[in-house]
Amino acid sequence: MFQVNQHYLELDESYLFSTIARKVEQFSTSHPGADIIRLGIGDVTLPLSPAVISALHRSVDEMGEKEHFRGYGPEQGYAFLREAIAETDFKNRGIDISPSEIFVSDGSKSDTGNIGDILGERNVVAITDPVYPVYLDTTLMRIGKTDKIRLLRCSEENGFLPEVPAVRADVVYLCYPNNPTGTVMSREQLKRWVDWALENESLILFDAAYEAFIRDESIPHSIYEIEGAKRCAIEFRSFSKSAGFTGLRCSYTVVPHELKVVTADGSKVSLHYLWNRRQSTKFNGTPYIIQRAAEAVYTAQGQQEMQQMIDSYMQNAALIRQGLSESGYTFFGGEHSPYIWLKCPDGLDSWQFFDRLLERCHIVGTPGIGFGAAGEGYFRLTAFNSAERTAEAIGRIAQLSSTR
Amino acid sequence: MFQVNQHYLELDESYLFSTIARKVEQFSTSHPGADIIRLGIGDVTLPLSPAVISALHRSVDEMGEKEHFRGYGPEQGYAFLREAIAETDFKNRGIDISPSEIFVSDGSKSDTGNIGDILGERNVVAITDPVYPVYLDTTLMRIGKTDKIRLLRCSEENGFLPEVPAVRADVVYLCYPNNPTGTVMSREQLKRWVDWALENESLILFDAAYEAFIRDESIPHSIYEIEGAKRCAIEFRSFSKSAGFTGLRCSYTVVPHELKVVTADGSKVSLHYLWNRRQSTKFNGTPYIIQRAAEAVYTAQGQQEMQQMIDSYMQNAALIRQGLSESGYTFFGGEHSPYIWLKCPDGLDSWQFFDRLLERCHIVGTPGIGFGAAGEGYFRLTAFNSAERTAEAIGRIAQLSSTR
Repeated sequence: MFQVNQHYLELDESYLFSTIARKVEQFSTSHPGADIIRLGIGDVTLPLSPAVISALHRSVDEMGEKEHFRGYGPEQGYAFLREAIAETDFKNRGIDISPSEIFVSDGSKSDTGNIGDILGERNVVAITDPVYPVYLDTTLMRIGKTDKIRLLRCSEENGFLPEVPAVRADVVYLCYPNNPTGTVMSREQLKRWVDWALENESLILFDAAYEAFIRDESIPHSIYEIEGAKRCAIEFRSFSKSAGFTGLRCSYTVVPHELKVVTADGSKVSLHYLWNRRQSTKFNGTPYIIQRAAEAVYTAQGQQEMQQMIDSYMQNAALIRQGLSESGYTFFGGEHSPYIWLKCPDGLDSWQFFDRLLERCHIVGTPGIGFGAAGEGYFRLTAFNSAERTAEAIGRIAQLSSTR
Repeated sequence: MFQVNQHYLELDESYLFSTIARKVEQFSTSHPGADIIRLGIGDVTLPLSPAVISALHRSVDEMGEKEHFRGYGPEQGYAFLREAIAETDFKNRGIDISPSEIFVSDGSKSDTGNIGDILGERNVVAITDPVYPVYLDTTLMRIGKTDKIRLLRCSEENGFLPEVPAVRADVVYLCYPNNPTGTVMSREQLKRWVDWALENESLILFDAAYEAFIRDESIPHSIYEIEGAKRCAIEFRSFSKSAGFTGLRCSYTVVPHELKVVTADGSKVSLHYLWNRRQSTKFNGTPYIIQRAAEAVYTAQGQQEMQQMIDSYMQNAALIRQGLSESGYTFFGGEHSPYIWLKCPDGLDSWQFFDRLLERCHIVGTPGIGFGAAGEGYFRLTAFNSAERTAEAIGRIAQLSSTR
């Protein structure tokens, strides 16, 4: 009789978004006139920019013409895109990453989920709490519930920035600017992690999906801004939030050639070789037209349009910050991130505050407990709604505070 | 110190296509005037059909408009596509598969590669030889070189159709119409496999990526045409070869609700639940515009255009079959498949025949040995070049035979 991966059976069911959906539906049914504002989901709302739309139309036309049609592309991505990425995201920032170190894919969720394929099962894996659930769930799928998974508690006391572990950790997932807390790591803080990883021969899996929202140039956009990171870190980047590609699906992962590990027999193996083997065996590349769309993001027009989009979301974030501040909330993030992480007032837990916000303000957010036990008592708001609706939401929250 | 997946280090490097490329390049350099015809690669050459191109342009426009923009879609695929698939590919053929049993993805290479995520490590896995290398390599990546991998030898004697194994096999990969041999399984032969799997509580992973090339309606397009298959089989389907989507990336996998397995604690678990958990955790869905393109394949115009494309490739296959027959070759496939699997003449091995065909005819094909040890002495030609070039190639092969 065939058997399944038993680790899947140990996974907790993720009820977060289904519970939210059910609660909102129940509320809508019992309050048919309620004008509900959604500040919960981490999805963009602005349409794709004109440069991206033009590139899509042009490449679609090519795919309909015999002389320009493209079938299978390179599993690692087309050179035109990998070169544009290396130039704009790295070289122009003084970072030496070559196009051959870049693997284009269909999403950071895929890549942060699949990266475990090339890792051994005996690693001790450190994961922050609260956390983007994909790191934890995919690790559990791979190695099961075990004491080899260590949670790095993030709290108000440490500003939601974990200290390097005092105990053994072979692999650590870090995401900065952070989802869900919206916090960022300074160059010094990130350097402590790189130094620790080099010292301990540990691997950092660095998710920089939100780097485009950084407003202060002293904060690193890439872990490779830190000396030595190419010998200890893999970086994940995405077009989802920066250029609004959540429905278009394109991202990339950087695996530097210098990143090597000693194997059981004492020889050195490059992680670039392993990830390339994984991708060329289990993946057939990102659609050509999507790669042309991503390339368009790097044109002068594309960069300007992307910046306008981000500015627009960040104006919403500023509105939320100002409103929460005036209403006396304690909160984090929203300065270099589309996420604002607030402390639930009046000693409420995450779900109690969710209910209060829904019932009294008709606003939907995300309970912090959904991102891990350390998220209890916190709540995530996002800056992805329109300016008008965000302002309206903040007005309602102010009124709630004045009447409580 | 962190560790990598040691199984990756045991994998043989795949030199097949790089060796072919190098040999062709060397030949071109030393024979600058040679007009080389490529019948090696399994990639389509005809451009996307007008129905598909129109659907792409329409949906690209939607993505540029605030009121129609779509961000994250369902990880399992949009209902509009899953419903069109269920209707056309299953219901219209009298097969009862519901849209909820269909998971849309970015390629059968991804799905046949990733399906191992939900399987246990103690399964005995049976794989045909010769084989599409993804099944073998991804199994090796997961469980390593072990006696739990059993090769089912396919040869001229059994018409390249393996018999059900007499020894234990918990999971078996089958691909019909077959890549690389081009052979098909009759309803009776496939029924023997389904009956065997039900009897032994084994799982069949059925790759039907080439079903659209079947010309004889008595040959099953889907394993679910066989009674009981919904309790023992997962089926993989692709738009790559049928509608020319190799550069567009869309496929789907069917996991029936009835497919269940008894777990260690004696309870039953559904593979649909496990695959859904895998896909919703490690995948963020296929791009909206690509799903609209796939939907267009199911319109009356789309179906007609797809049929024309397939007819055109199958005319090439018929040309190749006729030419090989007249030249006295022994060969298989090409009747319900774009692949023709020929026996190398004059006792040549696969690479010797590759060299002869390249040097004397300026034709590139694929050595059978590249698909496994049992492929030695065989050679794969594909029907994906143009009619004119295919006819030219066949003329050259005829001349080679007459002068040998």
